[in-house]
Amino acid sequence: MKAEMLCLGNELLIGRTVNTNATEISRELTKLGFTFSHHLVVEDDKETIVDALRWIHSRRPDLLVITGGLGPTFDDIQMDCVAEFMGVEMEFSEEAMALIHERYGDDLVNEARTKMATLPKGSIPLRNRVGTAPGVISRFEGMTIASLPGVPREMRSIFYKEMIPYFKEHFETKEIHELGFTAYGVGESKILELTEEVRRQFPDCYFKSHPHREDDRLFLQLHVYGYVEEETVRAAAEAWRAAISEITPDVTNISHVFTDDFEGEMHLES
Amino acid sequence: MKAEMLCLGNELLIGRTVNTNATEISRELTKLGFTFSHHLVVEDDKETIVDALRWIHSRRPDLLVITGGLGPTFDDIQMDCVAEFMGVEMEFSEEAMALIHERYGDDLVNEARTKMATLPKGSIPLRNRVGTAPGVISRFEGMTIASLPGVPREMRSIFYKEMIPYFKEHFETKEIHELGFTAYGVGESKILELTEEVRRQFPDCYFKSHPHREDDRLFLQLHVYGYVEEETVRAAAEAWRAAISEITPDVTNISHVFTDDFEGEMHLES
Repeated sequence: MKAEMLCLGNELLIGRTVNTNATEISRELTKLGFTFSHHLVVEDDKETIVDALRWIHSRRPDLLVITGGLGPTFDDIQMDCVAEFMGVEMEFSEEAMALIHERYGDDLVNEARTKMATLPKGSIPLRNRVGTAPGVISRFEGMTIASLPGVPREMRSIFYKEMIPYFKEHFETKEIHELGFTAYGVGESKILELTEEVRRQFPDCYFKSHPHREDDRLFLQLHVYGYVEEETVRAAAEAWRAAISEITPDVTNISHVFTDDFEGEMHLES
Repeated sequence: MKAEMLCLGNELLIGRTVNTNATEISRELTKLGFTFSHHLVVEDDKETIVDALRWIHSRRPDLLVITGGLGPTFDDIQMDCVAEFMGVEMEFSEEAMALIHERYGDDLVNEARTKMATLPKGSIPLRNRVGTAPGVISRFEGMTIASLPGVPREMRSIFYKEMIPYFKEHFETKEIHELGFTAYGVGESKILELTEEVRRQFPDCYFKSHPHREDDRLFLQLHVYGYVEEETVRAAAEAWRAAISEITPDVTNISHVFTDDFEGEMHLES
């Protein structure tokens, strides 16, 4: 499944904020079987954004995830740009208004609520449990457009609680498992042959080695992954580790490579 | 001066590595007067990269910075892609070879040295003090292409020590200054008028306020910046701070907003 990522926000382009959203979202969707061929960050300018949407669409992805520009202020233009790109009108959504009301009651001024409840015609709003604007799902010529806010805490709430279940329902997602270990005192050339042998035994697994050198000490980071049962990946990692242990005794235990605790938004400010 | 950023590397697209290079480079170049309208991350595939180069070029930037894919291995294809995009041959550079030799002597295999010394015809190699591949400057139809490795330590060495001096010599760079402070217990609407007044006194400075709420406590992050003398920015920030102090007493001191210590490469692995 082909995916693309579009992130809106001048704070990313002036180097004030590190784009951890792109990393986190593509990491999670990679684990579900999506493949990203681009991440694109674009300035908060309607023409530039619509132009970027057209370019992305020309690559015919199954899924486009957009972050940023969903809030109530004048420079939150993601929905406008998506509607313009799709060639549809913006339309007030009772469903979106109900979600916003559920969270804020009458706490927000009318104008802000109405803006955030006005979506590209035919779109589906998704509950935002921690912030103001709902997430949104739109569909255009076989491409699903998944709209998220840029604030990581809000992005995460919608992404994990609403969007991933939607993707699991509407795409043929799979689950990746990845395990890794480190071998010291050995270079890549030494393990080529034995890796080939293990690879033949586990044809559904992928084997990767990353050579490093620290203080003149050689070591390899070794990863096995696959869209198969975790036990299969573990068996492959264990077979690989056993073979490498015969060359060097200095091999770490096998552990999960992906972690679920994420550093979150990073600012470069003092 | 218009700039664009292209980052190569599948590790970015699968969410393993956070793209701190894009943040750091655009932060530094923003301070010198460049404006980025895109950051683009692209998979390590020649056709996709050349297509991205054409799309970026269609926007006519003065400068394109590329990171990643400069090393000695088969998937380091940045130079090939740049040559193909420019429509020029790859050519062995004695100058690049001298830089590589200076650092490694005969320590690297011939093949690796020759690959890294082979550049798009007419390009200029830049010294890499900490790693293998030189940085490269190429020129194409009014656009300067600045090629950097993806490993942050190497990227930084070339970028700060070789490339920024080159940019200062070949572009009309300027220097930004930015100062900020925080005001507690006050919202944006309360400071609109007084901000307008200060703005009129300092027409060359930009004023930005970011509203926040933490544990039900309102506060504003306030920034003043401009491509002018630091004293002018400081005077503007002091005038703004003095005016806001009359509304709320809870105002921090003025401090620099940009820091020079950068977190560096972030991995999401355990």
